[in-house]
Amino acid sequence: MHTKEEITTWFKTLQDNICAALEAEDGNGKFIEDNWERTEGGGGRTRIIQHGNVIEKGGVLFSAVHGPVPDFLKNENAISGDQQHTFYATGVSIVIHPSNPMVPIIHMNVRYFEMSTGVWWFGGGIDLTPHYVDEEDARFFHDALKNSCDKHSSGFYPEFKKWADDYFFINHRNETRGIGGIFFDKLSQTPEISKDQRFAFVQEIGNTFAPVYTRLMNKNKVRTYSEEHKKWQLLRRGRYVEFNLVYDKGTKFGLETNGRTESILMSLPETAGWHYNYLPTPGSAEEKTLSLLKKGISWA
Amino acid sequence: MHTKEEITTWFKTLQDNICAALEAEDGNGKFIEDNWERTEGGGGRTRIIQHGNVIEKGGVLFSAVHGPVPDFLKNENAISGDQQHTFYATGVSIVIHPSNPMVPIIHMNVRYFEMSTGVWWFGGGIDLTPHYVDEEDARFFHDALKNSCDKHSSGFYPEFKKWADDYFFINHRNETRGIGGIFFDKLSQTPEISKDQRFAFVQEIGNTFAPVYTRLMNKNKVRTYSEEHKKWQLLRRGRYVEFNLVYDKGTKFGLETNGRTESILMSLPETAGWHYNYLPTPGSAEEKTLSLLKKGISWA
Repeated sequence: MHTKEEITTWFKTLQDNICAALEAEDGNGKFIEDNWERTEGGGGRTRIIQHGNVIEKGGVLFSAVHGPVPDFLKNENAISGDQQHTFYATGVSIVIHPSNPMVPIIHMNVRYFEMSTGVWWFGGGIDLTPHYVDEEDARFFHDALKNSCDKHSSGFYPEFKKWADDYFFINHRNETRGIGGIFFDKLSQTPEISKDQRFAFVQEIGNTFAPVYTRLMNKNKVRTYSEEHKKWQLLRRGRYVEFNLVYDKGTKFGLETNGRTESILMSLPETAGWHYNYLPTPGSAEEKTLSLLKKGISWA
Repeated sequence: MHTKEEITTWFKTLQDNICAALEAEDGNGKFIEDNWERTEGGGGRTRIIQHGNVIEKGGVLFSAVHGPVPDFLKNENAISGDQQHTFYATGVSIVIHPSNPMVPIIHMNVRYFEMSTGVWWFGGGIDLTPHYVDEEDARFFHDALKNSCDKHSSGFYPEFKKWADDYFFINHRNETRGIGGIFFDKLSQTPEISKDQRFAFVQEIGNTFAPVYTRLMNKNKVRTYSEEHKKWQLLRRGRYVEFNLVYDKGTKFGLETNGRTESILMSLPETAGWHYNYLPTPGSAEEKTLSLLKKGISWA
């Protein structure tokens, strides 16, 4: 059975591999690295890329933190307040904002959590936010995720795809953040699924990121765009900001638990915009995109 | 004693007067008006100005809503769940984002709330967010608020100034949103202060807005600025977005209670930006501004 050290090492290597693949496809941008330490234990390796050929702003973050179980986690896990327990959490988080509005925004997170109570779980997700929905790309993206899921269980993709539709949802806009993907949390042991199998699944998802996203970068980075497309991109990024600051659990958790703000908010774009009551022109590509930001679309 | 109808009428007139003063000082921008209705009762008159000479994006909103007291308000006010009570809430909310980074962002809210239980209160606040802190302007702004407060009670300004320092605070950045102002909530009757006196104070604050802000517009709109100043403005606006989406109680309340999203989020700027780990040049105007975004500075 894999130990937390082995899982941690694997996540670090995943960060290395993804950074190398993104730099190669970008052709110009280079990641800068900031190492940081957490007072209560552990720390992270934040890697940021800004002003590349394709990537305007993005981050690929590794962290491994530990310490006493905070009170809210004790509550959630029915651990009485006076019990002394520790936790360990490690993972990789990615958000990439491209400069060309024809290249989609992407996000991935894969993580492992355990407590000295013996409880452990994996979580994660990957979702795509095109400024303009390209249906071929949307099918390609979901097909790739489905293929990765299906290698482990035929039930995973339908379950985790629905979970993503529900999670990556901007309730006050009645819009999904993008075309979704997969989302899963607290995947632990079952009679049918061992810890090693859970880890193998998370590794599969982690390894799906680079080939899928670099293909989307490669295909779309050569597409031309106008000032109007850039304006729409600003508005879509505004929605991304709304989701991350209002709904995203990782962001909330990080800000409320005194995490490293610059690492948490690396997910925000270089620029974003808001226009009062923007209404897309009937029949436009913007209107079509809005019509596809809905739950329950079968892309795969 | 003033009725809710009289208070409502006064807020509507305040909206009219402030819109007229802002249009006059802007010299080009005109407010557009959207009337909206709330399913559960009441509605609003949203007025938005975009792409004026001075104002890039702003809103002056009036609303008056009513209906059954929602559960969370019953909890807060110790009303048992099975009691049937109604509430009435009315007020004016303003956020103005200028295009010239030398002109500060301003926000004001004045509001009245009552329930059929007999409970009522006034609340509100006004705060200034300069992209670059001009100490003369900061003193002028706080002096004006202090003068308005002092006409009603010498204790108001110190109390409400501290309340603003604590409220308009971006905890995860350890920065105040701007140079503060005043903030107050749940001002009800006391043995010394009648309802009419509370209303007179709120009127005083409402009437302070237009002369104070149009003077700041007038003084600063002619100042020149560079691309570097515009970049810094984007980052300061990014912080404004962070405050409004993460901390602002009015925004949270509106989004969670299914309010009119486009009215609630009129507070967000036309554009905003984020740069990883931005550090101002030592000795620069940006660094000086950051050093003044702290609680407890005595401006008046």
